[in-house]
Amino acid sequence: MSESISFLPFWDALTDSEKAAINHSVFIQKYEKGTVIHQYSGNCIGLNILQKGRARIFITSPEGDEITLCRLLEGEVCILSAACMIHNLNFDIDIAYEEDTESCIIPKDVFKAVSDTNPSVKDFTLGMVANNFSIIMDRFNQFAFSSMRNRLSNALLEHYRLEKSRTLHLTHDALARDLGTAREVVTRLLNQFQSEGLVCLSRGEITLLDPESLSLSS
Amino acid sequence: MSESISFLPFWDALTDSEKAAINHSVFIQKYEKGTVIHQYSGNCIGLNILQKGRARIFITSPEGDEITLCRLLEGEVCILSAACMIHNLNFDIDIAYEEDTESCIIPKDVFKAVSDTNPSVKDFTLGMVANNFSIIMDRFNQFAFSSMRNRLSNALLEHYRLEKSRTLHLTHDALARDLGTAREVVTRLLNQFQSEGLVCLSRGEITLLDPESLSLSS
Repeated sequence: MSESISFLPFWDALTDSEKAAINHSVFIQKYEKGTVIHQYSGNCIGLNILQKGRARIFITSPEGDEITLCRLLEGEVCILSAACMIHNLNFDIDIAYEEDTESCIIPKDVFKAVSDTNPSVKDFTLGMVANNFSIIMDRFNQFAFSSMRNRLSNALLEHYRLEKSRTLHLTHDALARDLGTAREVVTRLLNQFQSEGLVCLSRGEITLLDPESLSLSS
Repeated sequence: MSESISFLPFWDALTDSEKAAINHSVFIQKYEKGTVIHQYSGNCIGLNILQKGRARIFITSPEGDEITLCRLLEGEVCILSAACMIHNLNFDIDIAYEEDTESCIIPKDVFKAVSDTNPSVKDFTLGMVANNFSIIMDRFNQFAFSSMRNRLSNALLEHYRLEKSRTLHLTHDALARDLGTAREVVTRLLNQFQSEGLVCLSRGEITLLDPESLSLSS
């Protein structure tokens, strides 16, 4: 059994036979850095608990423009990857693995069976869906109502928290994909930030000179 | 007992005592046309089933800009009004009653108690949350990736379906609030639609000359 599984909040509420069913079916899926998976309600493999690595969840326009909805970090559960198990949850997302990633997968049939008999598992699912709904509403609000300058500052600060370093190995293209805008817009704003002494730009790197001021300036 | 309650999909799965608890506590709440309620996780009164009238669910920026997320019609349940009962569902919305409205309310404590003991009620809640999540993801996609012309056509066609008439009693302001844009933008596009023979504009009214072409033109 993977340790990630026993950390799931519903684990202790499972019966011995439910635990056994999960233990027998759970498997590790590896994704290479750079892999992109289009996830729709027909193709999910099961509940995905990220053990190692990092993934980006995003939506894509018919023209190929992207907006990043959230990132999935170690120990986190991607409930959106389980959309096929949740009646009425019906939308497409894409998942890009930003690092070599290992996920612990509970196959959909097993998760669904346990979920149908154990109310704690249903509580967990409802809580996860509600939590993801709240995150996406927050993203929608930011997208609709914040200035691009504000959104770019927030994106830089998010990468600063992710990388735990002031020096971010990030292209302008990657930031544009996070924000759903053109690379040129990102470059123009980053140059503005540089002239204000907030960041220092060099090839393939953006260094935050003062994250605190960046946060206040937005 | 209100008839709307017995139409709820979980009704037949309730025990007699659960039915009795709901029957004793359910009440009708009236809202006058024009009433606006700010709904946050702290202030919900309970599960709201709209019996008569119409409501608009929207989000508001700190500057007062609005985007309409969806409309609530007769017979529909506003699960977002029940956010206080759903752990992890945590965001603010506004509800504007567009007509004199009567809602059937199951008080939050009663709904929560029934939901904690009856898995069918939890299934219902999960289904409603997932459904609303899907609707809002669709709206996010439209907002992020569709042209304003496209979004305006869709909004006109939505009002056409709501009013079941080609003549819409709608101000440019109201359309701007649906779309999260400025009134001037709506006016400019409507004039464009008029010059293309798609609509006819008069004081306080917009007549769709050919809904089919409007749908194709977007």
